[in-house]
Amino acid sequence: MHKPLDHQNRFDAARKEAGMLELGVCYYPEQWPREKWDEDARRMAELGLAWVRIGEFAWSHIEPRSGTFHWEWMDEAIEVLGRAGLKVILGTPTAAPPKWLVDLYPDILPVDARGVVRKFGARRHYCFSSRRYRVEAARITEAMARRYGDNPFVHAWQTDNEYGDHDTIHSYSDEAKRAFREWLAARYGTVEALNEAWGTRFWSMHYNGFEEVDLPNNLVEEPTPTHLVDYFRFSSDQVKSFNKAQVEIIRRHSPGRLVTHNFMNQNTDFDHYKVGEDIDVASWDVYPMGGLINGRLSDEEKARYLRVADPDQTAFNHDLYRAVGKGRVWVMEQQPGPVNWAAYNQSPADGMVRLWTWLAYAHGVDMVSYFRWRQAPFAQEQFHAGLLLPNSEADQGYLEVAEVAAEMARLPQGEVREKAAVAIMLDYESRYATRALPQGRGYAASAIALDWYSAVSRLGVDVDFIGQHSDLSGYKLVLAPDLVIPDADFIARLKASGAKALFGPRSGSKTRDMHIPADLPPGPLADLIDFRVTRVESLPDYHSEPVRYGNASHPVTGWRETIRTSETVLATFEGPHHTGTPAVIGNERARYAATLPQGEFLMRLVGDTLGWAGVASLPDLGDLRLARRGRLRFAFNYGSAPATVPAAPDADFLVGARELAPVGVAIWTEDGR
Amino acid sequence: MHKPLDHQNRFDAARKEAGMLELGVCYYPEQWPREKWDEDARRMAELGLAWVRIGEFAWSHIEPRSGTFHWEWMDEAIEVLGRAGLKVILGTPTAAPPKWLVDLYPDILPVDARGVVRKFGARRHYCFSSRRYRVEAARITEAMARRYGDNPFVHAWQTDNEYGDHDTIHSYSDEAKRAFREWLAARYGTVEALNEAWGTRFWSMHYNGFEEVDLPNNLVEEPTPTHLVDYFRFSSDQVKSFNKAQVEIIRRHSPGRLVTHNFMNQNTDFDHYKVGEDIDVASWDVYPMGGLINGRLSDEEKARYLRVADPDQTAFNHDLYRAVGKGRVWVMEQQPGPVNWAAYNQSPADGMVRLWTWLAYAHGVDMVSYFRWRQAPFAQEQFHAGLLLPNSEADQGYLEVAEVAAEMARLPQGEVREKAAVAIMLDYESRYATRALPQGRGYAASAIALDWYSAVSRLGVDVDFIGQHSDLSGYKLVLAPDLVIPDADFIARLKASGAKALFGPRSGSKTRDMHIPADLPPGPLADLIDFRVTRVESLPDYHSEPVRYGNASHPVTGWRETIRTSETVLATFEGPHHTGTPAVIGNERARYAATLPQGEFLMRLVGDTLGWAGVASLPDLGDLRLARRGRLRFAFNYGSAPATVPAAPDADFLVGARELAPVGVAIWTEDGR
Amino acid sequence: MHKPLDHQNRFDAARKEAGMLELGVCYYPEQWPREKWDEDARRMAELGLAWVRIGEFAWSHIEPRSGTFHWEWMDEAIEVLGRAGLKVILGTPTAAPPKWLVDLYPDILPVDARGVVRKFGARRHYCFSSRRYRVEAARITEAMARRYGDNPFVHAWQTDNEYGDHDTIHSYSDEAKRAFREWLAARYGTVEALNEAWGTRFWSMHYNGFEEVDLPNNLVEEPTPTHLVDYFRFSSDQVKSFNKAQVEIIRRHSPGRLVTHNFMNQNTDFDHYKVGEDIDVASWDVYPMGGLINGRLSDEEKARYLRVADPDQTAFNHDLYRAVGKGRVWVMEQQPGPVNWAAYNQSPADGMVRLWTWLAYAHGVDMVSYFRWRQAPFAQEQFHAGLLLPNSEADQGYLEVAEVAAEMARLPQGEVREKAAVAIMLDYESRYATRALPQGRGYAASAIALDWYSAVSRLGVDVDFIGQHSDLSGYKLVLAPDLVIPDADFIARLKASGAKALFGPRSGSKTRDMHIPADLPPGPLADLIDFRVTRVESLPDYHSEPVRYGNASHPVTGWRETIRTSETVLATFEGPHHTGTPAVIGNERARYAATLPQGEFLMRLVGDTLGWAGVASLPDLGDLRLARRGRLRFAFNYGSAPATVPAAPDADFLVGARELAPVGVAIWTEDGR
Repeated sequence: MHKPLDHQNRFDAARKEAGMLELGVCYYPEQWPREKWDEDARRMAELGLAWVRIGEFAWSHIEPRSGTFHWEWMDEAIEVLGRAGLKVILGTPTAAPPKWLVDLYPDILPVDARGVVRKFGARRHYCFSSRRYRVEAARITEAMARRYGDNPFVHAWQTDNEYGDHDTIHSYSDEAKRAFREWLAARYGTVEALNEAWGTRFWSMHYNGFEEVDLPNNLVEEPTPTHLVDYFRFSSDQVKSFNKAQVEIIRRHSPGRLVTHNFMNQNTDFDHYKVGEDIDVASWDVYPMGGLINGRLSDEEKARYLRVADPDQTAFNHDLYRAVGKGRVWVMEQQPGPVNWAAYNQSPADGMVRLWTWLAYAHGVDMVSYFRWRQAPFAQEQFHAGLLLPNSEADQGYLEVAEVAAEMARLPQGEVREKAAVAIMLDYESRYATRALPQGRGYAASAIALDWYSAVSRLGVDVDFIGQHSDLSGYKLVLAPDLVIPDADFIARLKASGAKALFGPRSGSKTRDMHIPADLPPGPLADLIDFRVTRVESLPDYHSEPVRYGNASHPVTGWRETIRTSETVLATFEGPHHTGTPAVIGNERARYAATLPQGEFLMRLVGDTLGWAGVASLPDLGDLRLARRGRLRFAFNYGSAPATVPAAPDADFLVGARELAPVGVAIWTEDGR
Repeated sequence: MHKPLDHQNRFDAARKEAGMLELGVCYYPEQWPREKWDEDARRMAELGLAWVRIGEFAWSHIEPRSGTFHWEWMDEAIEVLGRAGLKVILGTPTAAPPKWLVDLYPDILPVDARGVVRKFGARRHYCFSSRRYRVEAARITEAMARRYGDNPFVHAWQTDNEYGDHDTIHSYSDEAKRAFREWLAARYGTVEALNEAWGTRFWSMHYNGFEEVDLPNNLVEEPTPTHLVDYFRFSSDQVKSFNKAQVEIIRRHSPGRLVTHNFMNQNTDFDHYKVGEDIDVASWDVYPMGGLINGRLSDEEKARYLRVADPDQTAFNHDLYRAVGKGRVWVMEQQPGPVNWAAYNQSPADGMVRLWTWLAYAHGVDMVSYFRWRQAPFAQEQFHAGLLLPNSEADQGYLEVAEVAAEMARLPQGEVREKAAVAIMLDYESRYATRALPQGRGYAASAIALDWYSAVSRLGVDVDFIGQHSDLSGYKLVLAPDLVIPDADFIARLKASGAKALFGPRSGSKTRDMHIPADLPPGPLADLIDFRVTRVESLPDYHSEPVRYGNASHPVTGWRETIRTSETVLATFEGPHHTGTPAVIGNERARYAATLPQGEFLMRLVGDTLGWAGVASLPDLGDLRLARRGRLRFAFNYGSAPATVPAAPDADFLVGARELAPVGVAIWTEDGR
Repeated sequence: MHKPLDHQNRFDAARKEAGMLELGVCYYPEQWPREKWDEDARRMAELGLAWVRIGEFAWSHIEPRSGTFHWEWMDEAIEVLGRAGLKVILGTPTAAPPKWLVDLYPDILPVDARGVVRKFGARRHYCFSSRRYRVEAARITEAMARRYGDNPFVHAWQTDNEYGDHDTIHSYSDEAKRAFREWLAARYGTVEALNEAWGTRFWSMHYNGFEEVDLPNNLVEEPTPTHLVDYFRFSSDQVKSFNKAQVEIIRRHSPGRLVTHNFMNQNTDFDHYKVGEDIDVASWDVYPMGGLINGRLSDEEKARYLRVADPDQTAFNHDLYRAVGKGRVWVMEQQPGPVNWAAYNQSPADGMVRLWTWLAYAHGVDMVSYFRWRQAPFAQEQFHAGLLLPNSEADQGYLEVAEVAAEMARLPQGEVREKAAVAIMLDYESRYATRALPQGRGYAASAIALDWYSAVSRLGVDVDFIGQHSDLSGYKLVLAPDLVIPDADFIARLKASGAKALFGPRSGSKTRDMHIPADLPPGPLADLIDFRVTRVESLPDYHSEPVRYGNASHPVTGWRETIRTSETVLATFEGPHHTGTPAVIGNERARYAATLPQGEFLMRLVGDTLGWAGVASLPDLGDLRLARRGRLRFAFNYGSAPATVPAAPDADFLVGARELAPVGVAIWTEDGR
């Protein structure tokens, strides 16, 4: 369904025009007295902000009762902000339909997996499959687009807000059931095709018609995985079509403006590439503190990085959303201080807001907008910091933004993040596959992908993300930690591309119908590398298997495959079970790991693989991270001790210096460029 | 809504008349053959019991079918017990409506937070908002009150039983929804006032009328905290009015009798002070063993105190319910052996029933009633010990009650627990506030308050509890571990009172509408001590911050605030984050902790603060605890080794001796008084 | 309700005829193209398989629409398999009713404890109380039995599949409510008898009629335990009558064929003995790998036994189902490799399929059928290994079956597992009792029973299982780890039998009505051994009590009773609590443990008790296990090092040798027999 897009050229020009990182902020005029607006706008401009996002939760202020519109305040807010020199990003308010609307049409509300209606009182209380809500969302979007489409201060639009937040992609309503059946009928044509794909010969699950098919919740036991994966695909497609409807309305009434959506950190409940197809810029919301607390690291590591967060998670997502945005990415919400929603909500270290801003720029982000201008003293997010305290004093974030704004002046304009030599595959359907069939409690594809990314980053190498639709030209190495469902077409293009590749376990283990490939895994991957998986094991954390790689034995946990191969064996299992069988194999084009490399083993394997692919790398950087954007080189110190930046002797430091303090940022050029 | 009550004088006289601790027991004549009653009554009297509670689960025996009353057995039971010399406490049976009633009016049943009806088959299966149940509860109460109101053997009434047990304060029924809307309309007058208070400008949550407002369950994400706190307030008010309706009926038909309710250990689902306003004596149900197992201590500490329980939890509640009872407190149910409902149900050490009885008396309790006379060999609580085994043999508790009864004879009459020098604030609305907005997973106000109480107790100092309505005269020190929502009036009275005060973090952090105060926290508290909170962090257990206090560095976890102040800094954070910022500040009247003092740090801070306030204290008592009641001084040994009681050289030991064995109790007078 | 059965003689002859272990396989012709059937059948026969089970999930293939039957494929499949020399076991397909049937009669579906309907899409989606489903299950069973009842290739029938899998014994539907009321009316006759049994005098729970009684779910607090236990009994009886209805239909149309049901490992949701009464052979499904992962052992032990599984769990169940089958037991599904449903799914070590097969035979199993012939590449169980890989290559299991088939030829025919000297009591009603009233979170009767079994096995002693109905003749020792509800009749027969007995704590602690016995526990057990339980404690894992037994002090956790006795004290509690009180007592006939012996204490106590009962035992075998079947002696090595088999010097090894490698099996005879 995806076509490889050659978007790079199209947007490079645009970015070069943009010149330099732009800053912005999220603002809610409806939450503050009118008399504060002018000063707020003035201070924003003074601080060096160029953009301001408004409107995405304003429906009940715009239309407090059915058909009664109050545009005046928004007209005025846009005027005030625009006249102060700010470019407005206008959000469609569909993430939070008003109570009167929900009461009028209760089938707007989503239903949870237990069958309980999720009620009004917070946000995202709608079902993507509600036909009524589609009509209403289009109505309010059209009303806004008509009114502000050609407003000179409105430079961009955001559709809705954070699709997928609060686990809202999957709804189990009657409307969802109806829509799922329609989707299945469209996908399969005949119910016998569905029966074949779902394997309903098993357990007497045969369907006589699409109208017999139900949603996969509240079952006695797991449904067939194809049932689940189709439900995930359907749910994803519902997001795409919901979003696309808004984009089309906006484009009709607001030509020339950019359209974006603000995605969420590593959400894999829907296919972001597909939604990305319909927008101009991908944006995402950057909350590293909560990401750390709720994330993959051990408690010990969380304590160590408590106020600087996971050194790789944020960069990972910048790189991912750059791919989703076909090269163009913004940060719509940048955490400016402690927030309110994680299990614990620590403060970032002083300097982190600045660090995160430069990190974004280094990874190709063209605009960083902070959430939010002023901390709200009421409602759900009152513990969420802003650039200003609730009493309008400058908070720490404000000071750091001012610092960034000053530093921007020292840098050259028009630098563009270049295509990397290494690409990591993130395939959403493969994520649905392992979600539907995890097979072992410990298997977490998102953590595995981040571990692989981290290993590359610690070796000083830049990364792009790709999907199976992506253009592969120019890559020296493709890393595919969890490509469960490879397309034959992708494998063919990969083969043709000249890139080398390293695949993680489970790669190629399922067909698109979630079956085991006819001649055993890895299915089409066998075109690249010759092996067959004859046994699969998921293993508990309390047991590890020793793997011999190079001159050392490494413990691995979680997953093990027994394979048969004619390829060179690069690592072997050396425990008593199937001792001597291959753990990693390779030929001149591809490598496959029949295990989950971890820790030191992963670092070594990734390091060797980079060398094999001809990608230059550095010794392990520890808590230092590097990145390049055009001529600019960046270093970020996540450690608690000063570090020496591995810059060339002739480096010209524009920001910071060779000796980098904790939380420090250095920006330099080399070789006289 | 509360008025400070000057109740002390009114009840002192009553208590002096009472003379000495009285003992009682809970009895269920309907559960035993008629032929056992006479012997049971005789043995109760022989044992030295003065009171017997009956009737609180007898509805289906009184009225087995709608309108068919069987009073004969209860007439007879009261007669038998009364003639044996026992004073009867009669319970209204509304905690357990009969099945026929529930079938007749299904809307009596409560609904849980997931929307599922909570069915008949145990107890407390009613919704406080059911109008029908209000009518029925009044009807059965009136029937009982009419029949027994002037019965000479009935000396007191208990309303219902253990409000809040089994999480029954909060119901999500249609009746609750209706009543909540009415309550909101009464509180706010206009829906715009509600919109303002709830901050519905956020996330498009605006309401056009009270009829649009729903209960705060099954939402997509947390509701606004004001929605939650108002729901908690509403639920609390429903309990108060439900209880008050019964009290008024009883007072009408049974003048001169005492009315009580038996509260539960540290339940904070409703405002106990408000229910306490309407009754004569607060009573509570003392189950220290389960309290230990389900409580705040570490597994290691639980193992150490396994059969003596938490040395402070029980005393804490005696002191709390003394405040709820406006000085007058009973124990309605005292654990007499192992019970059935905790995660584990260990036996108390031999001697603990005696110890708990004297502990109660020392803390101002005037009557201790054991639950229950004889262990039931059937139904839910058959693993719950009684004073007698199911076969009527004396169990260990019986023997210890006999010992207490003998010891009572050695003590002087009419001793009254005096007002303490130190008061601890327990404010129910503040508890609702942190429940609605915990901000960090580890924040538990109840554990914090108990830690503070424990620190004071280990230094040998008696404590009173206060609410914001309480009379503050006479206190040298007020400890407020978690006063999130201070009244300006309370702060003014505190200021006027001359008492010094120590406030924990989060004090003053919310207005009554659950907003951040306009000029930042601590809101009205700033009248006492000058500071502003500019940053708030919740911190995980796996990270600790070092705080320098006195000559030592102490690790603290869980919570940290960054404050700005002109006051003296008493302790400072000394880790790398915001190093040197104040952790504890103070002036001549008030102190504020911007952290959660724990362990040794808490002991030192509390010790120093007592000294600062002119309250005499002792060195850390370890596992010994002291208390005073009039001239009587008490010591209790919770340790596993003998301890020396810190009595004056001239001490006159009435019970026990200076050397106190484990599980020992000593009672003495000093100075020839 | 049970009559002791003297079934031993009846079936010994049958088994002697059978001669030798038979092998079989589970096969799903409906899942494979017709063209594969012939080769599959040929290969099965070649491999040495004698039996093939088919049909148990084939309803929608047999009757794809209401009343439209497609028998042709099944006719042909049976013909193909039968002509290849295989005996067919035909499963009734009632474990998975088709979607059209569920849509036609939605009240077939079960309802979970929260009141949510459990939907179609997997299996076991029916409520045993649905009258409609009873009709439909009888209809399809009759249709199959009529068609294949006298088919010469059909040698046995299996009713339904795995009663109780996926927690499906307990349904909370309206049909279940109706049926429960009828069951109660039949059990009690009058509602007053129910009121008396349930103790509804407690908490006002009195019922005026059976129509007032509800199912025990969604209550405010636990129901009376008699309510729960009666619901468990009712649910169990529903399974028995559901199964019996099918058996009767089959017997009518298919005389002379064996009828079996395939039970599940240690499921105690229904009384297996009662279902066993109605069938000819008990079979069960052997999945040791998941049993280990989800089982009782510590993580350390799980890691140690990762690929050989718990050395006792499988043998325990062979012995148990031998009792359920009145001496006749099959394995219907033997794990042939990794599976898909446990928290982790590791591979068995090479050799384990062979080991498990011989283990089964050693424990009296006459037929071992592997699940499944070929791994399915689609649907829920695609990660479940078969004897063949999905592409029809031989997997490891296939090779091991071939090895077993070859070894069979070396062994003598007609050996019969003899009655053991030691019997372990497993009483289903007692399990309902502790499930209804666990009293302590840690109490797990199933783990306790397995611990006792393991202790006996490690001492080289064979075991039988018994229920209270069982014939006791010939036993030297009866072990009753958790006989909570002993029948007076059983106690009398035990007394008369001459067997000695060891009882665990809680034995005799409840009457059949779930009351405490009138003169305190142990009720009728007091006829065997004189003591009374005066106090019961459940204790947390973080606390242990020292017990003096022999010359050592042993830590015990979890449970402790204080008893009064005139018997000899064999072990005493020696901690500070009730120090010196009896922990184990005994007379010449019976012993009682007032504690939960664990680890070394349990090994010593069991060892001494075997000696006391005159049962010969060996020193602790560690990871070796022994068993006897007639003249054949077996040893199995679960350890990671070679072990020496404790065979007589004249042992004649038929399989393996005296030195036994890890995963090794030795079979020998001794004494020239």
